[in-house]
Parts: sequence; structure tokens; C-alpha cells
Amino acid sequence: MTVATPEAPPSPAISPDDPVLGTEFATEMVRQVRAIDPYGTYDNLSPAEILEPYVLTKAKKREIPIVGDPDEIVVARLQAFYNAIAVMIEQECGLRAIPLLHLSHEGFGRALITVGKLVVMDRTLRDVHRFGFPSLSKMKHEADTLLAVALELIGEHSDVAGL
Amino acid sequence: MTVATPEAPPSPAISPDDPVLGTEFATEMVRQVRAIDPYGTYDNLSPAEILEPYVLTKAKKREIPIVGDPDEIVVARLQAFYNAIAVMIEQECGLRAIPLLHLSHEGFGRALITVGKLVVMDRTLRDVHRFGFPSLSKMKHEADTLLAVALELIGEHSDVAGL
Repeated sequence: MTVATPEAPPSPAISPDDPVLGTEFATEMVRQVRAIDPYGTYDNLSPAEILEPYVLTKAKKREIPIVGDPDEIVVARLQAFYNAIAVMIEQECGLRAIPLLHLSHEGFGRALITVGKLVVMDRTLRDVHRFGFPSLSKMKHEADTLLAVALELIGEHSDVAGL
Repeated sequence: MTVATPEAPPSPAISPDDPVLGTEFATEMVRQVRAIDPYGTYDNLSPAEILEPYVLTKAKKREIPIVGDPDEIVVARLQAFYNAIAVMIEQECGLRAIPLLHLSHEGFGRALITVGKLVVMDRTLRDVHRFGFPSLSKMKHEADTLLAVALELIGEHSDVAGL
């Protein structure tokens, strides 16, 4: 799968000094995006530039049609996001977390993360072609929430998570 | 999704008198296949003819190349099989069972059924383009096994299945 270089926006949505870029989550996200970039298109990009497409400011979102089919790049971006969350779950609980993304051509679907026989995250996806967050810190907040809920479930049902 | 009418094989792999055709499983399978046949291509086919493509005798299997991409018809067939199992789980335990099929273009993937937050079936799929069973009764046996394992898990972890 190829990942196209994003066009340089007039004013970047992520500042290179954003403290969120130093967090474990952002580091993992950058690692995941690089992992799905087999041709090294992203090699010369900074972390802020790599995560730029995840931030959909209101102006950027307005340019995307309301109805649309998700392309490969958006799907890869979504996969990288849920992969990063799965990795963070694994790091916290020491058990294997497996992400599973199921999408129809129209951009509806389901994202799941399982640990053992426990579903630790289960989300219905819609309008995947408009996937993005208002800011990098909102994206991290969303990931933190998913992580916290998953870890709580694992704590409560460790027998099923260990199956 | 369109489902092509299978070519009439010289000798059918399923006899119209096969007692398995009268079971709940076969009835549900026929219902599932008809459900993914929006143009009514299957309307005039008997249950034995509808389930015929699921039986891959050795001779039929030999004609399929070892490496190949699964087409839409095979994927729909696989989906109908796991849908039928999910319906049977639902009927037995009274809780909603949701099947999820994730396939790569190369025919590798994962089939999952969840009940609440419990993964009641989790299978790695390979060589999906060669999906099929040696006989109808072997197919029913496989479904029965998956059903029994799922129901046992639900019984043991009813709290998680009820989430």
C-alpha cells in the first residue's frame, strides 16, 4: 500500500513545538504511520508533518464532501490509529491486543480490538472518508479514553482477557 | 452483491434426499444464501442446489488453483456460513451475536463472532478461494462444533456476554 505525501497546507494544523508530539501516543502513531509506508515517502517528514493529515480543522473538513468513498490512504490512516491503540493496550497489560477493521466500500464499518476472548474496544464507523480530529490534543484525548476503557475491561474480566 | 448461478455439475455433491437438508442448520444456510441474492437468481433452485457450492469434493477441489484471489462470490458464501452460525448462537442463548469477517485481497483473514464483549468464535482464514467442505454432513458437523464451543464460552462467561 502506498501512502501519498500530503500536500503542504498553508498553515500547519500541528505546530512542531506541540508538547503532545513528545507523548508516548504520538511516538507510537508516528511509528505506525511509518510502518505502512513501505516506499519511504515519509522518511524526510517530521512527526508533526506525518500526523498532520489526522487533524481536520473546520476549514479542512468543509472541503471534504459529506458523502464519499474512503480511499486506501484514509483506510491506512484509520488502521494506524487503531494499531497504535492496540500497541498501547499491549504495553499496559502485557497481553496481546489484536485490532480488526471491517469497512464496507461506502465507508461504514466496525473497528474492534480483542484481548484474548475479550472485546476491549468496539466502535461503529461512519463517514470514514472524513476521519480526523479537531486537534492533535483531541486525538490524544480520544486515544487515552479508548485505552482507559479497554484497561478497565481487562481488569474486570482478566480471566476472559487471558483466554 | 450478485451471486452467480453455479454451473450444474455432472453429478450433484448433495443428494436432494440428504437428511441433513432437513436440519435447522441447512434451513438457516439456505435462508442466508437467499438473503444475499438480491436479484432472485436463486429463486428457482432447490436447497440442495443452493448449498451445492459449499461442497468441494476432491475432484472439484483439484480444479481450483492452490494460489488465487477470492472473488466476491466466495466471500459472500463465507459470510453466509458465519452469519448462519451467528443466527444459531442467537437462537440458543437469546443474546445478539455479531459476525465480523476481515479478509485481505489475497484471501487471508479472520472471522469473528462476538456476543456482548465476548469473542465466541475466532478463526484465522487461509486460502479462502478454496473454501468448502468434503460433504454436507461435514459442513454441518463443523457448524455444530463452532456452535457448541461458542455456547460453552457464553455459559462460562455470561457476565461478559451480557455486556
